[in-house]
Amino acid sequence: MIKIYDLELSGNCHKVRLMSALLGVEYELIPVDLLGGEHKSPQFLQLNPLGQIPVIVDNDIIIRDSQAILVYLARKYGNEDWLPLDAESMAKVMQWLSFAAHEINNSVFIARLYFRFNMDVDWESAQAKGKQVMQIMNEHLQHRDWLELDRPTIADIACYPYVGLAPEGKVSLDDYPNVIAWIERIKQLPGYIGMPGL
Amino acid sequence: MIKIYDLELSGNCHKVRLMSALLGVEYELIPVDLLGGEHKSPQFLQLNPLGQIPVIVDNDIIIRDSQAILVYLARKYGNEDWLPLDAESMAKVMQWLSFAAHEINNSVFIARLYFRFNMDVDWESAQAKGKQVMQIMNEHLQHRDWLELDRPTIADIACYPYVGLAPEGKVSLDDYPNVIAWIERIKQLPGYIGMPGL
Repeated sequence: MIKIYDLELSGNCHKVRLMSALLGVEYELIPVDLLGGEHKSPQFLQLNPLGQIPVIVDNDIIIRDSQAILVYLARKYGNEDWLPLDAESMAKVMQWLSFAAHEINNSVFIARLYFRFNMDVDWESAQAKGKQVMQIMNEHLQHRDWLELDRPTIADIACYPYVGLAPEGKVSLDDYPNVIAWIERIKQLPGYIGMPGL
Repeated sequence: MIKIYDLELSGNCHKVRLMSALLGVEYELIPVDLLGGEHKSPQFLQLNPLGQIPVIVDNDIIIRDSQAILVYLARKYGNEDWLPLDAESMAKVMQWLSFAAHEINNSVFIARLYFRFNMDVDWESAQAKGKQVMQIMNEHLQHRDWLELDRPTIADIACYPYVGLAPEGKVSLDDYPNVIAWIERIKQLPGYIGMPGL
């Protein structure tokens, strides 16, 4: 059984919970007290010097970073279903892991920090970027059911939580019907689990 | 021969040029006029809806995003030398692609934009984050020659350009001797090529 160092309200942690559930991998959640600063404690920094959640521990293997954990879970427990190995397919999926780490993180993720957690961030800039990011996804999904390869991959799982949570950062999805339809498709996947706000 | 849509001063483009050179892949550079806004032109947005460089075109395959391109080149032209396929190794490498896309991008990359390109960014915040990021890398490299797996991988190539260019953003590397030694190791790789500032 893998251990997931977790925060219930974290979309990055939800990527890991959701991927584990979709793969049928059993996991134990270990809550990390972010408000209490546990993620900056010496013990936690041993697990992840970046002081971030999620982290997984699978026997003696420790992996940080939600995108890297998706790669790990897909390779270890998912054959090539969720992450194919040929150069073109893998790179196309990777494009969206970077999109999740950068474009989504610097937009709807930040906007949600402001409205959901009262954090001191530039929400106006984040909301404006969020609309651009949603527009790009909406156009990309106009003639596609999934982000790449005509099937669900870790690309979709990497992007899903913070896109689905965008309304919590006051970025409405009403203008992006293809994004809404994609979210609904993800919610229909066998084994799907939700989180507060999704 | 692959085509690289390129800007000489871009560290993200240099990741692609350098990886191609290390792999012995022939490439043609196609300069993109960012000052003239060519990356936002309808023609370029056909290649990359995000309006960013680099993009590569390999026959009919189009890949955007420097991290995804590293994955593509490593898988297509590098066997498992630069990107191994077992779950643990691949995920460990992936951790650093996210680190490049997020931590490095939001710190030393931004600081360089201010001092090198006079862009309107929060350089104080970027420099402060840059020192944290360099400290994390310096500690990680204390007992290691390479970021993961005791050999050069795309993890190193993804992180290298903007770390090496950090002094252009007035983030001195003098306090991070392990980072400096790692940079020198990369410069010794067979086939290495530089760029202005490196």
